[in-house]
Amino acid sequence: MADDIIYFEDLTVGDSFDFGPITVTREEAVAFAAEFDPQPFHLSDEAAASTHFGTISVSGWHTTALFMKMFVRAMQKEPGRQAASLGAMGVDELRWLRPVRPGDTLRGRNEVIDKKASKSRPEMGIVRNKVTLFNQQDEPVLTMIPIAMWRTRPA
Amino acid sequence: MADDIIYFEDLTVGDSFDFGPITVTREEAVAFAAEFDPQPFHLSDEAAASTHFGTISVSGWHTTALFMKMFVRAMQKEPGRQAASLGAMGVDELRWLRPVRPGDTLRGRNEVIDKKASKSRPEMGIVRNKVTLFNQQDEPVLTMIPIAMWRTRPA
Repeated sequence: MADDIIYFEDLTVGDSFDFGPITVTREEAVAFAAEFDPQPFHLSDEAAASTHFGTISVSGWHTTALFMKMFVRAMQKEPGRQAASLGAMGVDELRWLRPVRPGDTLRGRNEVIDKKASKSRPEMGIVRNKVTLFNQQDEPVLTMIPIAMWRTRPA
Repeated sequence: MADDIIYFEDLTVGDSFDFGPITVTREEAVAFAAEFDPQPFHLSDEAAASTHFGTISVSGWHTTALFMKMFVRAMQKEPGRQAASLGAMGVDELRWLRPVRPGDTLRGRNEVIDKKASKSRPEMGIVRNKVTLFNQQDEPVLTMIPIAMWRTRPA
């Protein structure tokens, strides 16, 4: 079934799939933070010691980028899903629930929580997904609701 | 006044400040996408030509990382603001309104839209901000509502 395209009409509320894992190294965490989020508590344990983080933590925007990396990998293993994705228009209710630390191994789950046809664009539907990322202790570190555009079955 | 800390009590709904600009190059856009979001329409114009993007576009997660880069730079110019920031717990209503293209120059505005004391943690308050990013044509490309934790004035 790998070549069969999963159209909007084929998605069911409650559908879920898992993705990952991926491990984030200290070198990667510091390099990302130095480029995009150079707050001291993302750059050194010494600076983090005086904050509520305690030790160095991964930038929250690095965590969302790692979500995308895992998600795209999973999509590329399912060409029928990738073929029908039209990207995301946005994200609701993004929450960083606890710090991600260098050395942590993340994995995630995506669940379809709502779908509706587009009134203005019949070639696509709108799908709301609940994403949860977990660390290696199975603790949730991030939740969010990406709003995806999904191709409808050609008439 | 640069050394004066801007505590939670000093913030007023309607306060705003501008940040940026920053220009994203094609090399940076492709490098970020190759690492974190290797969907074909982020990697080459040829692949983007068959999608609604038309030409290569910047990953939405690269755009949020560029927001953070501009925002941290602006905070570092205002030590009193930086000293009181305790990071963000999340983001509501993130919307990628139109594609960001390699070569685009982005800037942004942050406006305080709501604030409330924390019942469980008297040392901090919760501040909701409306962020808008614009391109060089002054078109909005992204809006979102970061939810920040902010230090309260010591008793």
